[in-house]
Amino acid sequence: MSLSPHARPAIAPGAVTSGPIRGSRKHYSSPPGWPGLQVPSRKVELSDPVAPSLQLYDASGPYTDPAYAIDLAWGLPPLREPWLAQRGLGLEQVIESAEDSDRAGPACPAPLVQRCGENGRPVTQLEFARLGVVTEEMAFAAHRENLGRSQAIQGAPQRRADGEDFGAAIPEWVTPEFVRDEIAAGRAILPANINHPELEPMVIGRNFLVKVNANIGNSAVSSGVAEEVEKLVWAIRWGADTVMDLSTGQDIHPIRSWIVRNSPVPIGTVPIYQALEVVGGDPLKLSWPVFRDILVEQARQGVDYFTIHAGVRLAHIPLTAGRVTGIVSRGGSIMARWCLEGMRENFLYTHFAEICEICRRYDVSLSLGDGLRPGSQADANDAAQFAELETLGELTRVAWTHGCQVMVEGPGHVPMHKIKANMDRQLEVCGGAPFYTLGPLTTDVAPGYDHITSGIGAAMIGWFGTAMLCYVTPKEHLGLPNRDDVKTGVITYRIAAHAADLAKGHPAARLRDDALSRARFEFRWEDQFHLALDPDTACAYHDETLPKAAHKQARFCSMCGPKFCSMKISQDLRDDVAAMQKGPCAEGLPVMEGVLHDLAE
Amino acid sequence: MSLSPHARPAIAPGAVTSGPIRGSRKHYSSPPGWPGLQVPSRKVELSDPVAPSLQLYDASGPYTDPAYAIDLAWGLPPLREPWLAQRGLGLEQVIESAEDSDRAGPACPAPLVQRCGENGRPVTQLEFARLGVVTEEMAFAAHRENLGRSQAIQGAPQRRADGEDFGAAIPEWVTPEFVRDEIAAGRAILPANINHPELEPMVIGRNFLVKVNANIGNSAVSSGVAEEVEKLVWAIRWGADTVMDLSTGQDIHPIRSWIVRNSPVPIGTVPIYQALEVVGGDPLKLSWPVFRDILVEQARQGVDYFTIHAGVRLAHIPLTAGRVTGIVSRGGSIMARWCLEGMRENFLYTHFAEICEICRRYDVSLSLGDGLRPGSQADANDAAQFAELETLGELTRVAWTHGCQVMVEGPGHVPMHKIKANMDRQLEVCGGAPFYTLGPLTTDVAPGYDHITSGIGAAMIGWFGTAMLCYVTPKEHLGLPNRDDVKTGVITYRIAAHAADLAKGHPAARLRDDALSRARFEFRWEDQFHLALDPDTACAYHDETLPKAAHKQARFCSMCGPKFCSMKISQDLRDDVAAMQKGPCAEGLPVMEGVLHDLAE
Repeated sequence: MSLSPHARPAIAPGAVTSGPIRGSRKHYSSPPGWPGLQVPSRKVELSDPVAPSLQLYDASGPYTDPAYAIDLAWGLPPLREPWLAQRGLGLEQVIESAEDSDRAGPACPAPLVQRCGENGRPVTQLEFARLGVVTEEMAFAAHRENLGRSQAIQGAPQRRADGEDFGAAIPEWVTPEFVRDEIAAGRAILPANINHPELEPMVIGRNFLVKVNANIGNSAVSSGVAEEVEKLVWAIRWGADTVMDLSTGQDIHPIRSWIVRNSPVPIGTVPIYQALEVVGGDPLKLSWPVFRDILVEQARQGVDYFTIHAGVRLAHIPLTAGRVTGIVSRGGSIMARWCLEGMRENFLYTHFAEICEICRRYDVSLSLGDGLRPGSQADANDAAQFAELETLGELTRVAWTHGCQVMVEGPGHVPMHKIKANMDRQLEVCGGAPFYTLGPLTTDVAPGYDHITSGIGAAMIGWFGTAMLCYVTPKEHLGLPNRDDVKTGVITYRIAAHAADLAKGHPAARLRDDALSRARFEFRWEDQFHLALDPDTACAYHDETLPKAAHKQARFCSMCGPKFCSMKISQDLRDDVAAMQKGPCAEGLPVMEGVLHDLAE
Repeated sequence: MSLSPHARPAIAPGAVTSGPIRGSRKHYSSPPGWPGLQVPSRKVELSDPVAPSLQLYDASGPYTDPAYAIDLAWGLPPLREPWLAQRGLGLEQVIESAEDSDRAGPACPAPLVQRCGENGRPVTQLEFARLGVVTEEMAFAAHRENLGRSQAIQGAPQRRADGEDFGAAIPEWVTPEFVRDEIAAGRAILPANINHPELEPMVIGRNFLVKVNANIGNSAVSSGVAEEVEKLVWAIRWGADTVMDLSTGQDIHPIRSWIVRNSPVPIGTVPIYQALEVVGGDPLKLSWPVFRDILVEQARQGVDYFTIHAGVRLAHIPLTAGRVTGIVSRGGSIMARWCLEGMRENFLYTHFAEICEICRRYDVSLSLGDGLRPGSQADANDAAQFAELETLGELTRVAWTHGCQVMVEGPGHVPMHKIKANMDRQLEVCGGAPFYTLGPLTTDVAPGYDHITSGIGAAMIGWFGTAMLCYVTPKEHLGLPNRDDVKTGVITYRIAAHAADLAKGHPAARLRDDALSRARFEFRWEDQFHLALDPDTACAYHDETLPKAAHKQARFCSMCGPKFCSMKISQDLRDDVAAMQKGPCAEGLPVMEGVLHDLAE
């Protein structure tokens, strides 16, 4: 696309949220031996001169870097371009699809060298990994995973994490080779379409930090391109590691081009949605040729992973007949309808090898959709769900033989006592491919609060081994999430992911908890806010009752007031204990003497 | 108190929230064989004529009964009065404490026959239970626990709950005798001060529904009595089973009288807070006589349970010296300060037998405070915490020998992998006495969202066996919760408690999930709202995007729109499957034939 800057649509610079997250600043560093890589993080400096600053994982992209001038029409800097240029990939003629001229909005005019893999040469991260090659993407992702690790390793032994990892193998230090080996083994994916050079690479797998996906989608009343990109920018600002664009409607194609060109995180889609649009909304008119063309179109645009509902086999559908909530996955119900109409096998299943061939050419990762996931507590872990999971295991192996990266989607609605069986079964059936779950929701009785019902399940299944958690917003089951809902959903899932990392024993996870807890104990209010997942809300809540600037120096908060502040009393106590340990006053107390002796060891 | 109605303070009738919760109406029923007991529930009638109505557990008291005329100055109807009158309890002279005249506000003028237990005659529910007596309170509480159980037992076998109860023994049907036996064994408590006749009795124990406590407290800027009572009414409206009044300040005594006289749920307090007020805020001036007088004063008022930090022994305090967050319990830090100052043993510990004697006389249940609970992930499950727990186990047995009901408080801040050890240890050390935990918070990094960080831990520990969960609001660590925060905290904890009941295999828990899921699947929007924990929010969220009345009949929602609605497609599918099962079209498909055959079994 050689559109001149003059022809670019005018997008106001302030059209998307930008600027640093309160209390942190953008920081770039290079992994050892890779001076050309600039890996982003957020650096939080603390007011206590003794406390080391914290480098936090940062998925928010250049939008939080004040030095970066946002221009949506130019897209983000194509940082992968030089890496991709060296890989001997084919160049593709940019062909706008036939319908493009009919579509309402213009596509993003950002320049893109469009590439395509060729036969006989490695394209995907999996193929490179199998050849023993460490790609720039792997080194980049490894460095992100290591943030905080050196600090943790240097820390006192008692600050080193403990945990129960249920058989995961989280290393003390993540080398690029470790990332490569995990990808080669199929235990991790690095979703990175070769036509998404703007991507800041990240890795999804059980032995890495637990990741979070946020869904966005255009709405019928969408007012324009900037609004759609803002949804992405907003979700990653609060910590979404990947974003799925679940848009439906006429402008799917051009809007997606704006999203991909402006996204530093992997973008996922469910191509069957666009296919259904193309055939006028009638599932029965779907066909393999229609679907194939859409796969190619989206792969060329740079979509990083596709949800494919190939596990909804004809034979599984009757297993849903006795369910309380039938089939609740949109893609699953669309395919089930198609299958039953002609009593025919799902074309996504019968054409799965061809789907893999397309995905391989562009290194689009596969996300095997769980079209028969349970939609209620009653349907959890039933025959339909597990029959489909068996098929997903079969398809995982097919994808691997084609050199494709693949992860497996999971439920849904599951009571707590049935969650672990999902993880165990997935590990067993899918050969260790990363699990990517929606929640699960641990009860059905709280519409309006399903970020919480599902956050409980998400934390647990993340602990058990799920590699990425798909968020749920408070509007789930009720309506379209607004801006606040998206933020609430992302923060809730960051909580779940972090709680899971802590419980798994990730070696650096507790650094942030400890830093925040110390700040709390020492009444460093600003430090406490800055270390919070959501510094704005933490500060706003504090200021609601104690708004004055001086209160942020106060050695108490409004909950207890100065007289009842346990932290304050406890700090005084600490001095007493220290004095006791030095002075003679402990001598009269044999019980305490023993205790003090133990402490002195 | 013989205050004439003319002297009563004027409280506007609309001063507290009243009226039915949307979509339900108050319903009273009597347990078999107890025609005199009127046990409240909320009845939700569904729009589907085939679907049975649901009776939901209801802690909200008469406030949600439109037939009840609220008059805060008269207090709630003393429904236990006739039961208490027959028990041979002594009558007490009503003595206002010396400071009463100095206090700012007037006490609640509601008439109260003030009673006091005598030696040699049973007073507490535990004493009656040990004698084999089933009290009215036990029958009342049993009936509440059974709501939905007969419906569940009649249900199809596949709808009967499964679950993992970790050794709990939840019966199919709760008889009054079962309640009695659980209390006699110390595995449950029925907090019911003999001076709280307004109480609607409930039971707390591992083999009953998981309960939720909400904390309220007066604030310095409190504008009056109605505002304080409203906090209680608001918390129980959304499902708090008990309420702790953590007020500090000058008006503690009169405000508490308004709260107790108007509370249908057990009221708990932390008497050391009032003691600290009395001695002018200096922990070092605390003494046993001051504390004893306050215990008696509060017991006479009708407080149902006391948190007593008797486990903070002098010898345990040095164990906190290396902690990241020291001692974070207010009561714990106050007592630790007192102990260290004179290198003396905690007077709550040394006078514990006398505390028990006072509690027995009024049947105040003991809640053994965990003053050394961890305040951060770093401090979880440490030596200080578990040393205190050992002492709480010792004190549990002391309380039992005095005929006192007792439960044990638990943490706090605990990563997921260390939660179960807390429950297991408590069960082992405290002889099966009910566990009552605060959260636990599963990470420290999300101030502003600690209802969620703790809701995760609460659901899990509830599943493992905790009998009551103490809520945490979004303002935890930051400021005073407002009305919305209290509601959010209560709903979050109702989610946690219900998720725990489901996972434990409570025989009737899933009824509500199933009813709501069916309503969802059948697009009965109003039924879905009415079955929700928070019908108002569910409806408001729906209406945000589809506000018209007609949309509540719509067979889709704004999330997917009609074309992409999986529920709609799935319902069409169900008809197809039904047709297949009848018609010849399945014959050509041997795989499906087998499946269909299985389904027909």
